[in-house]
Amino acid sequence: MPRRGLVTTPDPVHPAWLPPEAFRAIGSRRTLVLGDGLLAGTVHDEVADACARYGGRVRRGAEDGPYDLVLALTTEPLPGVAGEVRPDSAIGAEGYLLARRDGVTVVLADDPAGLLYGLFHVVRLGERAFAGELQAERHRPAMRRRMLDHWDNVDVHPVMGQVERGYAGGSIFWRDGAPRGDLARVRAYGRLLAACGVNAISVNNVNVRATGARLLTDRLGDVAALADVLRPYGIRVHLSVSFASPVVLGGLPTADPLDEGVRKWWAGVTERVYDTIPDFGGYVVKADSEGEPGPFAYGRDHADGANLLAEALEPFGGVVHWRAFVYNHRQDWRDRSTDRARAAYDHFAPLDGRFRDNVILQVKHGPVDFQVREPVSPVIAAMPATRLAVELQVTQEYTGQQRHVCYLPPMWREVLGFRPWGPDGTAVADVAGGASGDGGGLVAVSNVGDDPYWTGHPLAQANLYAFGRLAWAPWTDPAAILDEWIDLTFTPTATGDTEALRHTLHAIMDGSWRTYERYTAPLGVGFMVRPGHHYGPDVDGYEYTPWGTYHFADRDGVGVDRTRATGTGFTGQYPPPWSEVYESLDRCPDELLLFFHHVPYGHVLHSGATVVQHIYDTHFAGVEEAIEARRRWEEAAALFDPSLHARVEELLDEQVRCAEEWRDQINAYFFRKSGVPDVRGRRIP
Amino acid sequence: MPRRGLVTTPDPVHPAWLPPEAFRAIGSRRTLVLGDGLLAGTVHDEVADACARYGGRVRRGAEDGPYDLVLALTTEPLPGVAGEVRPDSAIGAEGYLLARRDGVTVVLADDPAGLLYGLFHVVRLGERAFAGELQAERHRPAMRRRMLDHWDNVDVHPVMGQVERGYAGGSIFWRDGAPRGDLARVRAYGRLLAACGVNAISVNNVNVRATGARLLTDRLGDVAALADVLRPYGIRVHLSVSFASPVVLGGLPTADPLDEGVRKWWAGVTERVYDTIPDFGGYVVKADSEGEPGPFAYGRDHADGANLLAEALEPFGGVVHWRAFVYNHRQDWRDRSTDRARAAYDHFAPLDGRFRDNVILQVKHGPVDFQVREPVSPVIAAMPATRLAVELQVTQEYTGQQRHVCYLPPMWREVLGFRPWGPDGTAVADVAGGASGDGGGLVAVSNVGDDPYWTGHPLAQANLYAFGRLAWAPWTDPAAILDEWIDLTFTPTATGDTEALRHTLHAIMDGSWRTYERYTAPLGVGFMVRPGHHYGPDVDGYEYTPWGTYHFADRDGVGVDRTRATGTGFTGQYPPPWSEVYESLDRCPDELLLFFHHVPYGHVLHSGATVVQHIYDTHFAGVEEAIEARRRWEEAAALFDPSLHARVEELLDEQVRCAEEWRDQINAYFFRKSGVPDVRGRRIP
Repeated sequence: MPRRGLVTTPDPVHPAWLPPEAFRAIGSRRTLVLGDGLLAGTVHDEVADACARYGGRVRRGAEDGPYDLVLALTTEPLPGVAGEVRPDSAIGAEGYLLARRDGVTVVLADDPAGLLYGLFHVVRLGERAFAGELQAERHRPAMRRRMLDHWDNVDVHPVMGQVERGYAGGSIFWRDGAPRGDLARVRAYGRLLAACGVNAISVNNVNVRATGARLLTDRLGDVAALADVLRPYGIRVHLSVSFASPVVLGGLPTADPLDEGVRKWWAGVTERVYDTIPDFGGYVVKADSEGEPGPFAYGRDHADGANLLAEALEPFGGVVHWRAFVYNHRQDWRDRSTDRARAAYDHFAPLDGRFRDNVILQVKHGPVDFQVREPVSPVIAAMPATRLAVELQVTQEYTGQQRHVCYLPPMWREVLGFRPWGPDGTAVADVAGGASGDGGGLVAVSNVGDDPYWTGHPLAQANLYAFGRLAWAPWTDPAAILDEWIDLTFTPTATGDTEALRHTLHAIMDGSWRTYERYTAPLGVGFMVRPGHHYGPDVDGYEYTPWGTYHFADRDGVGVDRTRATGTGFTGQYPPPWSEVYESLDRCPDELLLFFHHVPYGHVLHSGATVVQHIYDTHFAGVEEAIEARRRWEEAAALFDPSLHARVEELLDEQVRCAEEWRDQINAYFFRKSGVPDVRGRRIP
Repeated sequence: MPRRGLVTTPDPVHPAWLPPEAFRAIGSRRTLVLGDGLLAGTVHDEVADACARYGGRVRRGAEDGPYDLVLALTTEPLPGVAGEVRPDSAIGAEGYLLARRDGVTVVLADDPAGLLYGLFHVVRLGERAFAGELQAERHRPAMRRRMLDHWDNVDVHPVMGQVERGYAGGSIFWRDGAPRGDLARVRAYGRLLAACGVNAISVNNVNVRATGARLLTDRLGDVAALADVLRPYGIRVHLSVSFASPVVLGGLPTADPLDEGVRKWWAGVTERVYDTIPDFGGYVVKADSEGEPGPFAYGRDHADGANLLAEALEPFGGVVHWRAFVYNHRQDWRDRSTDRARAAYDHFAPLDGRFRDNVILQVKHGPVDFQVREPVSPVIAAMPATRLAVELQVTQEYTGQQRHVCYLPPMWREVLGFRPWGPDGTAVADVAGGASGDGGGLVAVSNVGDDPYWTGHPLAQANLYAFGRLAWAPWTDPAAILDEWIDLTFTPTATGDTEALRHTLHAIMDGSWRTYERYTAPLGVGFMVRPGHHYGPDVDGYEYTPWGTYHFADRDGVGVDRTRATGTGFTGQYPPPWSEVYESLDRCPDELLLFFHHVPYGHVLHSGATVVQHIYDTHFAGVEEAIEARRRWEEAAALFDPSLHARVEELLDEQVRCAEEWRDQINAYFFRKSGVPDVRGRRIP
């Protein structure tokens, strides 16, 4: 069996979805690159590297054809076929046109970034890019802003470590209070991101501490060094800043957003940032959240706070990503009237229209915190006069921490496709994209670390890849994205292998999010994880704590009553029809039932099962699915590089162990509480 | 109101029960010290210091009376009254005779240690030592070994810190991998311990790590320095060692106790220890417990392991304290047949008779782990041919962590007075004391740190004091010990104040252990604490974990069935009558019911209350008692030094807050599970 083409070596670093093989089709052909600018240079150099390996050739600006591939800016005089397919109207920022005629493949773009994305489109197509004819297709990103947040600490945090919620080793940017210094790794990261469409990174944790805070001032050079290596891949660097910076760094007596000295301080600091990094993206701020400083300390609201920074950034074209993740994390569990799910809406909806143009309100996709199942945040439908970004979590904090296979795009696709105003209304993807194409876009917490496979679990690379692709084209089928990722990453050499490998990975990954949901917290109730590290089950772990994440299970039933009629009123934060659908015990979707309603264990779901029987059934089924995934993987050993296969196999063992633990704890908990036996008589410990 | 005499200043260090005032009666009189030796010198110096302050005088060996106090070795020619009260028979090791006749108070001892303890007896008596006549009383320690274990890490442990389960700041011995260097503080500690009767200390954590391990070899000088300052107070130094030392420190390929090279290694190392510290006490070992290395790794048992070290120590008169705290801490919670309570007996009882003479098997007083209420460990009654020490925990790991007032002697007194073979049999105190007076004695984990009050909570000093006193005289009434501690510590100047202060402290402290029991885990079931740090409630915190500490609460009932008839059979580890009493649902004492039986919530206790109503009642009552303690303390502000009063007040606020949290979580948990309302209709959240 031919193995060579499948080998993916993690030494020193796994190439992820850009192994040399991915460039074979281009590298063995003749390419012309027409256009100036840094990113056009990147395009040329990428092709040149591929040609050096596979025997093709590349020219830049010199007409000595013939060519198999022409990558050209529309501002250039276009020869031959390229001239023929030149469009009548603008292609648009970062977009490209792809066509093939008379044996020549053409990529046209209005700007160099478009050329770069067009190149990677050709890479994805591989040999298909050079076969037959191709009608001109235009491609533009649905989101202007496609950003990854790194919760990387500069200093090692005593509890959270070098990367908060990081499950892939250390940070690729920082180590022990200083830059890691491996700029080649950062550059490789930028290249991977460009290949899936990401164009912005924030390089430090939103919980800004110690040295991290000083990146804004005396450690700015460290940020500039990262910006320099990411710039050739079209990625702008953003910085998480502390709202208390004027006090902490500037020695001012206050950080009051309405204080003139504070405004001047931010203006001056920001000017120095742009002197150093002219294409700096902007600031990311977590304010008045989980102990971080914010405008509340001065009796100001979050519009005051965000506008302060936006004003400083505005002259330079920068933006402030202001996180809407504001809630009371010192809640009294005895007080059932407080509802953490309500918090973001209650804080921010009244401020709609008060934010400056260059404020992006960054809203977590669900109202609580990246659980395996949540409804879409009502904030997304509540602020038409505010630029909103939707925040996802690629790092698997609550979805298996990169020890479990959990391919997240099916969840993200549901979120992006959700229509808050009903079937005829706009979708979440449209809100994030913006009516005029200039919405806040999509942001996600990265899952990358200094692990040789980048993401700890090798298969978790697919989540990172897919995030970028969905930010570019949110209506793409997750399974199709998975195919792209498989084809690029595993570069098979024989058709038989390709199909078997593809089938194996689809079998394991396509349904893995639902599998994970089945063996963890049921029916949208959320949490039930071990406090602190959030790995593994602890049904009551957060039940009597100040964090506001409860399930209220008693001997009769379970769930959170968030109705207007008898509960916290959270359902009223949605526009119709969802305000009615969620309010209604009959109409509420099964998978969110316990998020919205407290019901008896005997309540019958739309599926026909009672709640408690559903809990038993899904937990038995989820484990069986995990075991089946492991079986499929073991069976496919010959298709993968042995070291990659071994690592995934080890992780699948842990996933099965942990899934069994979830199953048994959840089932035992609800059996002990309800006293209702499993109708199928399976063992509940 | 006279305040001066009550002032106890924590700057730099609170004098605890040895403020200068405590020596006023001696220091203002004429004393003769007769005898040679280091400890007789200590006696002289103590008196001399007191005389320098209060105007008395002291002579050593020079007969130029008259004297108010004579402290003399029986080996000396005894003048006057001292000669008249000289006994016909030996007083015994560390013992003393106290008498007063013709205006002269006499302390006689066979050894200098006895003189020292006699001196502190006179200190405790104060003016009463110099009034009227006193028939000759002989005092001897009930336990030859009265030892404190310090779980002090040499290096700072990333999770456990400098002192594992320490609630009084850093270690007085170690800081950041090196000796702390404050030998004056160590000396002051030794003096306090001598005054309550402690005569041995182990100076490092039983979980031996990194630098801690090396105290045995290249860092032995650090231990010798401690021994040098503790020696004048009659305290021998012991060392916790790693069973893997031959491998870790010696570079041997094995630590197999039957390996000849290993035996030689220990012999050589131990010889060097005694070369450096001739009165070195011995080794303390936690083996095969919670991840520590031990003989199991080599297919050997714990007699093999303990005897290995004992053999090395034997030529020098040293002992090995071998901890019986061996259990499976990776238990599967789904397996109800494993019972952690059984573990120590199952491991050690079969080994009875196989230990060398200088092995002391150190047994925790309860079968689990220092819970607020446990039965006495059956191991104590199971090993007549083994020298046993009973281990208590002065540091309040599970009893409020020195934020809660919890005066522990009433619990210890119950343990020491427990008669495993029934009312006519020997008591635990007798087992520990040993039939021939040479039992393993009493060991406790110290509660001392570098806090200015020594123990974090100023009132927790009383636990340390009382431990020493109970090790000396286990039949003493805890309230009488509290009186001693109060009289020494607060040295009142006016009778009115004395009484008020005494009443306040008795009101707050006498019943504080039972109060703590009332608002925490009910009826002996144990745990229900937050995992890891063990502070505050989390009913299910350990329920689905590998630690083996479960309560098995379901909608119908709660408790652990440890009967022979239907449970784990643990009751069978006791001799009659307790094997029958604990087995019987009717005869089992209420306070241990849930330790031994799983019962329905409606089960009626001997008290007449149902189990669930008992839970509600005790939890409401416990909080009320904590509130009442705070009220008493607030009322007594004028009686105490303001800074001490303020600290205790702050701690009482935290105690009340935490007690309310316990009450509400426990009550809510059992109400949610049982559905049984409180018959008194109080609010359960």
